[in-house]
Amino acid sequence: MQPLRFENKTLLVLDQTRLPNNIAYLKITRHTELIDAINKLCIRGAPAIGIAAGYGIALGARHIKKGNMREFLEELEILTKNITSTRPTAYNLFRVASTMRAVANRAANPVQAKNLLMQEAVKIHNDQCELDLTLSRNGSALVEDNASILTHCNTGRLATGGYGTALGVIAYAHRQNKKIKVIATETRPLLQGARLTALELREAGIPFHIITDLMAGHLMQRDRINMVITGADRIAANGDTANKIGTYSLAILARQHNIPFYIAAPSSTFDCETKTGKDIVIEERSPEEVTHLMGTPITTPQAQAFNPAFDITPSSLITSFITEKGIIPPGEVCRLNNI
Amino acid sequence: MQPLRFENKTLLVLDQTRLPNNIAYLKITRHTELIDAINKLCIRGAPAIGIAAGYGIALGARHIKKGNMREFLEELEILTKNITSTRPTAYNLFRVASTMRAVANRAANPVQAKNLLMQEAVKIHNDQCELDLTLSRNGSALVEDNASILTHCNTGRLATGGYGTALGVIAYAHRQNKKIKVIATETRPLLQGARLTALELREAGIPFHIITDLMAGHLMQRDRINMVITGADRIAANGDTANKIGTYSLAILARQHNIPFYIAAPSSTFDCETKTGKDIVIEERSPEEVTHLMGTPITTPQAQAFNPAFDITPSSLITSFITEKGIIPPGEVCRLNNI
Repeated sequence: MQPLRFENKTLLVLDQTRLPNNIAYLKITRHTELIDAINKLCIRGAPAIGIAAGYGIALGARHIKKGNMREFLEELEILTKNITSTRPTAYNLFRVASTMRAVANRAANPVQAKNLLMQEAVKIHNDQCELDLTLSRNGSALVEDNASILTHCNTGRLATGGYGTALGVIAYAHRQNKKIKVIATETRPLLQGARLTALELREAGIPFHIITDLMAGHLMQRDRINMVITGADRIAANGDTANKIGTYSLAILARQHNIPFYIAAPSSTFDCETKTGKDIVIEERSPEEVTHLMGTPITTPQAQAFNPAFDITPSSLITSFITEKGIIPPGEVCRLNNI
Repeated sequence: MQPLRFENKTLLVLDQTRLPNNIAYLKITRHTELIDAINKLCIRGAPAIGIAAGYGIALGARHIKKGNMREFLEELEILTKNITSTRPTAYNLFRVASTMRAVANRAANPVQAKNLLMQEAVKIHNDQCELDLTLSRNGSALVEDNASILTHCNTGRLATGGYGTALGVIAYAHRQNKKIKVIATETRPLLQGARLTALELREAGIPFHIITDLMAGHLMQRDRINMVITGADRIAANGDTANKIGTYSLAILARQHNIPFYIAAPSSTFDCETKTGKDIVIEERSPEEVTHLMGTPITTPQAQAFNPAFDITPSSLITSFITEKGIIPPGEVCRLNNI
């Protein structure tokens, strides 16, 4: 199940809000439609958002009428900013925007720019699968036979458009015939664990159990979890990591029980211009995602709710980072840029 | 909103599974109907289950036809065991059963026993409100002005049939005009926080926000929580405490952030015959409570799920116990029996 396909100048986006019950693709030909799809979380997961943004910029560029390169670049910048303003935390979005800007700037004229931007978008997409596979193979070396692995949110094909990050590591270990079991947190508020990770694990034939998020400590207390692997939305220069809300709590619980806690993320998620987690903007989403579940209210009318979409796990709680460039200790994150 | 009313020889049980959207009372005249209501969690919360069990035993006794005291007591024992076998963890259930047994044994004949049992059931119910108020006043002394208090699950009137335990403390502090704010975990799988605690807080006019359960660590990291108060289902002699699944994780998070963690429970929840938490049976409930939400599936078909209803918080993580007999340090739990 692929979250993104590019066919006949159209980006097909699997509407993940409707999974696991409905499989429906949105047909996107304009960047404004993509912005809507990202805002509604039809497409989500930092790497997949990055890929989608590449296509969005390329599709947006196709509609720029200006013949003059300066005017073209000005309009491209406006639409690029509109796309990056959708989700403030996921870094891949900003990295792709920066790559696309550089590509456009290399072009001699708008026609050439439009072609190069489209080629780059396809390349970013194609590269992801290879990146993910290398990352997953690297991570699989850390997975012991008979391991019981806790993971949070969704970090599989659906989240990256490739092979997956944390869930890629799990899938790779399974492919290497390691006998593993997965504990997948349901991941409230939007249930990416119960809806999406369960779907991918079932398709891959990997044994798993769903838990409600706060059961994690109890299972660790009973020695039912050997390792924790999650993805990341942005990793600061010192290794502090923004990821799905709840990741920080899980990292504390893992540390308390001496369970290794790994972050699996491609190097494109590492933001070495942001010094520490304190400098990462945490997206606050609508309280309705908490007060409702799949459209149904679960609390009293007018109840207020907090809804930070991410939290920051300090690097001190992270055992190491699993990347396509190897297993990186938290203290050496910025070395990645130079590898 | 009262979870239990006894009128015209009928126990009226508020069906809490239908809150907050529907207010409907079940009319219970036989102990078998009560067993069904407890199993389905129409009535829940350790103290309220205890009160309901008292009425259930008294109602069951009314239908015993045997005229001989020995035969009466035998039948009473069978129905009492049927009631206590509903929920293995909540201690109040077993304590009430033991009280009712002693009352029946004091009677000269079945007619007298039936009357005494009914009087005792009403007394247990009436006593709860006074116990809760004393407990709540004791606990309120620990609440500072402007405190932001995290609570888990539901521990208000709906859970005790009286004034509440953890939520009683919160309500009492509010009544004393302390400016408090409450953070209520939604409490998956059955959402007692979002459904019931929110309802009670709104009725009391206490400001609150709902969070998904695993947001707790993030809010603690950001200094948004000053104290945690939860209830308990059973407290062992060494202070280890069984409570709603997730309590243990919250206690670890609180300790990690130097936030005091209190358990509010009447002395009837203290089980000094159980030495430590390891000896407490944890009820495992149907996986469907996790894979579904309010009847709607939230994951792929055939997904497996774990569903322990409780977990054990070791006494070392508990700052103190708030009881009707005072604030008790974890090391002095069994002194309670002698106060």
